[in-house]
Amino acid sequence: MQAASSKWSQWVNGNAVLEFIDVTLRGCAQVMFQNNPLTGLLFFAAIFVGAFAEGHPAVAFGCVLGTVAATFTGMNLKDRASWKAGLYGYNGCLVGVGLPTFLDPTPTLWLCIILASVVSVIVTLCIADILKTWKVAALTAPFVLVTWTMLLASYAFGGLSSNELPVPNLPHDLVAYNPNLFDGIDLFHATFYGISEVFLLSTVVGSLLFLAGLAVSSLWAALFGLLGSFLAVLVATLLQAEHSSINNGLYAFSAVLTAIALGSTFNKPRLRVLIYTVIGVIFTVFVQGALNTVLGPIGIPTLTMPFVLASWLFLVPNKDVMPAHRQ
Amino acid sequence: MQAASSKWSQWVNGNAVLEFIDVTLRGCAQVMFQNNPLTGLLFFAAIFVGAFAEGHPAVAFGCVLGTVAATFTGMNLKDRASWKAGLYGYNGCLVGVGLPTFLDPTPTLWLCIILASVVSVIVTLCIADILKTWKVAALTAPFVLVTWTMLLASYAFGGLSSNELPVPNLPHDLVAYNPNLFDGIDLFHATFYGISEVFLLSTVVGSLLFLAGLAVSSLWAALFGLLGSFLAVLVATLLQAEHSSINNGLYAFSAVLTAIALGSTFNKPRLRVLIYTVIGVIFTVFVQGALNTVLGPIGIPTLTMPFVLASWLFLVPNKDVMPAHRQ
Amino acid sequence: MQAASSKWSQWVNGNAVLEFIDVTLRGCAQVMFQNNPLTGLLFFAAIFVGAFAEGHPAVAFGCVLGTVAATFTGMNLKDRASWKAGLYGYNGCLVGVGLPTFLDPTPTLWLCIILASVVSVIVTLCIADILKTWKVAALTAPFVLVTWTMLLASYAFGGLSSNELPVPNLPHDLVAYNPNLFDGIDLFHATFYGISEVFLLSTVVGSLLFLAGLAVSSLWAALFGLLGSFLAVLVATLLQAEHSSINNGLYAFSAVLTAIALGSTFNKPRLRVLIYTVIGVIFTVFVQGALNTVLGPIGIPTLTMPFVLASWLFLVPNKDVMPAHRQ
Repeated sequence: MQAASSKWSQWVNGNAVLEFIDVTLRGCAQVMFQNNPLTGLLFFAAIFVGAFAEGHPAVAFGCVLGTVAATFTGMNLKDRASWKAGLYGYNGCLVGVGLPTFLDPTPTLWLCIILASVVSVIVTLCIADILKTWKVAALTAPFVLVTWTMLLASYAFGGLSSNELPVPNLPHDLVAYNPNLFDGIDLFHATFYGISEVFLLSTVVGSLLFLAGLAVSSLWAALFGLLGSFLAVLVATLLQAEHSSINNGLYAFSAVLTAIALGSTFNKPRLRVLIYTVIGVIFTVFVQGALNTVLGPIGIPTLTMPFVLASWLFLVPNKDVMPAHRQ
Repeated sequence: MQAASSKWSQWVNGNAVLEFIDVTLRGCAQVMFQNNPLTGLLFFAAIFVGAFAEGHPAVAFGCVLGTVAATFTGMNLKDRASWKAGLYGYNGCLVGVGLPTFLDPTPTLWLCIILASVVSVIVTLCIADILKTWKVAALTAPFVLVTWTMLLASYAFGGLSSNELPVPNLPHDLVAYNPNLFDGIDLFHATFYGISEVFLLSTVVGSLLFLAGLAVSSLWAALFGLLGSFLAVLVATLLQAEHSSINNGLYAFSAVLTAIALGSTFNKPRLRVLIYTVIGVIFTVFVQGALNTVLGPIGIPTLTMPFVLASWLFLVPNKDVMPAHRQ
Repeated sequence: MQAASSKWSQWVNGNAVLEFIDVTLRGCAQVMFQNNPLTGLLFFAAIFVGAFAEGHPAVAFGCVLGTVAATFTGMNLKDRASWKAGLYGYNGCLVGVGLPTFLDPTPTLWLCIILASVVSVIVTLCIADILKTWKVAALTAPFVLVTWTMLLASYAFGGLSSNELPVPNLPHDLVAYNPNLFDGIDLFHATFYGISEVFLLSTVVGSLLFLAGLAVSSLWAALFGLLGSFLAVLVATLLQAEHSSINNGLYAFSAVLTAIALGSTFNKPRLRVLIYTVIGVIFTVFVQGALNTVLGPIGIPTLTMPFVLASWLFLVPNKDVMPAHRQ
């Protein structure tokens, strides 16, 4: 595999088209923090499997369009190192998944995907400039902010219609379930859908492809992602969240990203990190519940904002908590 | 004209009252980024024309009161250069327009205009201190935040009543219009009202005075403002926003400021800047639609926040996007 | 008293258990900015008096649990000076008061208090790191953000139930009262409840204990707290806020903290500071009304956020406004 990987690098360096494909694949892989074109290829495969299985091919094509548009935009910027690592592409990738998931596939939508992907690069630069002060990454905040803007705007624009957005509603208390907390909970599907729901898809085959994509780049990332999903499902079950949301992985996908970020990307795995990550994952479940309530009246989904907020919260003071972090 | 302008400078330097008037006029002009007392005079004229034509004289007098109160407050601060340029006055100017537009003209209201103008200077200092880190200006954020606070508080206070605030409402989808998108759209009025709506007024004569005020200070600013308004009206029409909102310039006024800011104030006009400005203006229309949805349930208007958000977003990474910006 | 205090210091330095108690007491005192264990003891006494008088013993025990859990968490961090001053404890103290005030005292709640107190330390580090850039303190923002998260999440989780949260509601205009503004206003109780409501309690005896606790540490703090409460009640009365809210001190508790912070903690009392503090207190009342409106649709209380927002607003530019501040 290493031989193949080094050969690929050689080809890429000599050819602008291959390089663009390489960076586009890395863009997709960076959704889960991996700088690896093979990971990106497996992720794209997972997205196509999931999107077609759900009867939403527009999601798969939108994903390709968004990643390409964002990668193309990023090519015109000064920071080539970030571009080559796919760091301008991953938010466009998610924008391209997110918009067709919630909005009807009209010609206006495709133009919006292109615009949103271009703007996601500007938001990435903006947030990176701001967060540089505290040495924290933009994570998927550009995707969330741009997609929220478009989804919110769709309520004001007749040209953007939707049958998939949550109906705007004031919060109301959830009635507690029966005493046996695990009745009606499908731990297996909840955990695996938690992984594919990072890309807004419910697909077990896709989840296995996502885990394979993570594993070829980092075994720790695959492990933390899977365990993060499982832990989040457990916590949401104990707190008695809505069963259908738990079973669809909707309390787990942000936790997957929190677990990978805190446990393997921005820290080296060890005991203190593990404890910190567990607290972070548990708190992500609370942030998910809280954001569901906050966004209820304006009728938009949380997307991966619970992950972004919880991870920023835990990453800013990371150096204060991890004494040996500098070694 | 230059002779007159230099004579004015001489008078101003020798006389505290004239200097105060000069700075107050510049405060009004800075709403559209111009440091020019003649611009301010033409702007005040436009505001009086518009306010009286709409039967809202309190708006004109509030505007004068707010600008004077803010300018007076700023006089007590250390930074004389910012004060002389009118940079402590423009938010008070808008506060003085905004509050009487939405709240009934009682004695309590006039006290609130004074308080809000004083606080707008403190907010200006606060935001300027924060944004200094990323070399970005406060724009009209102090106006928006202070006015939002007062308008929101008016729901809780019997002493502040209103018949003009939007009725709090959960968002609901807009039904698409007929296939001919431009039916019922009045491009001329929409574009010109877009300019005067920066000061919350719908007046064609006022708009011409605003454009004249811009032109005596910067022809580029006048041009970008007018074209920004027109482009925003086109985009909102293609996206099928509500017709009455488009025709009253409500999708254009933030775009006017975005166009002037990105195209002429913080960049020197050239091709790359033009493209960036066009993207910024188009995105401002989406932010306008999104903020309309977000603020719906709490019953307040967006004011110029779409401009502030879109322009901050595009100005923070300005240096990353404009390679030759430093020359 | 000074002899007793110095003896206490000697004991504390030689004994880990006594030190932990000392820091826990200081944590409670830091809710009102005092670094003094005797203040903390009087504050705890006030909380027990108030909580038992209201028939909510869980609030008193939650408060102890929260302060201990946060102090214990902070003990594991590098910054010993902040820990010894109780700066990692006060948000846990308020979390422990806030959660049982609004949520039913189930086993899940007690686990949530521990989790929220631990996370409040992480939020304290995070906000302190961010605000360091502008030399401003985190104030009670960590308490508010963590408690809001849990309260919002309680709508999504059947395992967290509440009968005390405000019913989610769209804002509607308040009808003005009769011409005699002070009819139905109880200035005495409103002012004293304003002090104890910092800890979400309505108790006159408790308020006197809180004032005593302040006075043993700083007479200025006690004076500013009392006058801040009185001024806020006056302003809310003139603005014709809801009578029951005024009489329960709900327009005053944030103003108490603003007054202590601006008038005595971060400035040395003198005329310019007094004027600044008065403006800050008046504006805090508007922020209180505004936040009531904003949070109405999502059904959570403001907690001390009006204080946090108003004080950050006035503290960031403090150095620009106070010319002799450095001497």
